[in-house]
Amino acid sequence: MADPSEHEQPSRLERQAAFLAEAERLKLVYRRNRTVDRSRFENSAEHSWHAALTALILAEHADAEGIDMAKVLSMLLIHDLVEIDAGDTWLYDAAGAGDQPERERVAADRIFGLLPDDQGRRLRALWEEFDTRSTPEGAFAAAIDLLQPLANHLLSGGFAGDEPKPAVEQVLERKRGIADGSAELWRLARRIIEESTEKGFYRQ
Amino acid sequence: MADPSEHEQPSRLERQAAFLAEAERLKLVYRRNRTVDRSRFENSAEHSWHAALTALILAEHADAEGIDMAKVLSMLLIHDLVEIDAGDTWLYDAAGAGDQPERERVAADRIFGLLPDDQGRRLRALWEEFDTRSTPEGAFAAAIDLLQPLANHLLSGGFAGDEPKPAVEQVLERKRGIADGSAELWRLARRIIEESTEKGFYRQ
Repeated sequence: MADPSEHEQPSRLERQAAFLAEAERLKLVYRRNRTVDRSRFENSAEHSWHAALTALILAEHADAEGIDMAKVLSMLLIHDLVEIDAGDTWLYDAAGAGDQPERERVAADRIFGLLPDDQGRRLRALWEEFDTRSTPEGAFAAAIDLLQPLANHLLSGGFAGDEPKPAVEQVLERKRGIADGSAELWRLARRIIEESTEKGFYRQ
Repeated sequence: MADPSEHEQPSRLERQAAFLAEAERLKLVYRRNRTVDRSRFENSAEHSWHAALTALILAEHADAEGIDMAKVLSMLLIHDLVEIDAGDTWLYDAAGAGDQPERERVAADRIFGLLPDDQGRRLRALWEEFDTRSTPEGAFAAAIDLLQPLANHLLSGGFAGDEPKPAVEQVLERKRGIADGSAELWRLARRIIEESTEKGFYRQ
């Protein structure tokens, strides 16, 4: 006979289903970027999809050899889940950036804590590897996460007139991490930044 | 000296960037499923993200041993790109299903054709492997693609009163492919269908 107390604990699959149900809420976290028809703001779930797709397509441009793509794709699929609690902090928001690491750490504890313990620990470690860019996979995934919004921003036509615009020096400084994952993609990023600046999307 | 004619051809990276720009449009393909706050319809880009995340979390429940997760995740990231041209065909739309394969084939030719030739051929073959469920990875990815909307539908509260509802037998028949990827996830799916039917989301 099974121990009746085991029925009080959710099964592995129940904990996984609860995590996946919580993940639905990432679709409701909106960013400063827009869809290409400018009908609405992009959300962090579709950004995560586009970032993972970008990594898949641009993998050959990673500086490091023999990158583990299952790991890179997994990182990009989970990298923004903390925003369900912590919200999306704009890359150029100096005030919001102050307590961002602490807010995201608390969020990671709660959200990855929904999973079975071993799986939650593994995914939380993967999120930290992305966040600290401490491995070739982390560096490449972070490069892609920095590149996707730059390309989207040029395609979708920049900020609206009443929205704050970052200065081009600020953009170059915040996006420089792309170079840690790929020299080739950093060249592409600089061309995108240049073209966006010519269009008046960043302050000169 | 480089052959001057090579400058007339877009580079690999330029073709990849054109493909990724085109992929932006998947964020504008709306489905019948809703976000959990019922504020709007879900789009195929965020569905693709949620499906890939679901595969990552539920990988241990695949019936086949030693599944290549990089392949499963890649399949789910690209599986709906054809909808940019072909639109989303509702699983229970018998009329739309008639010419769906042909519409999607033409779309796949165009969209994967934006990529460098070798990469486009590789991804198109991966999409066909998903579409035909002809490998363990294809069967598991297809199971996940069938499961994610079922769970979302229960969480987001079903269809609106003026929307057509499928019959529960129809749901069971169209979702039975889940069993080809995972017996465990098919049990979960049947529980979700049962609960959704009790709530009146499907016709009895």
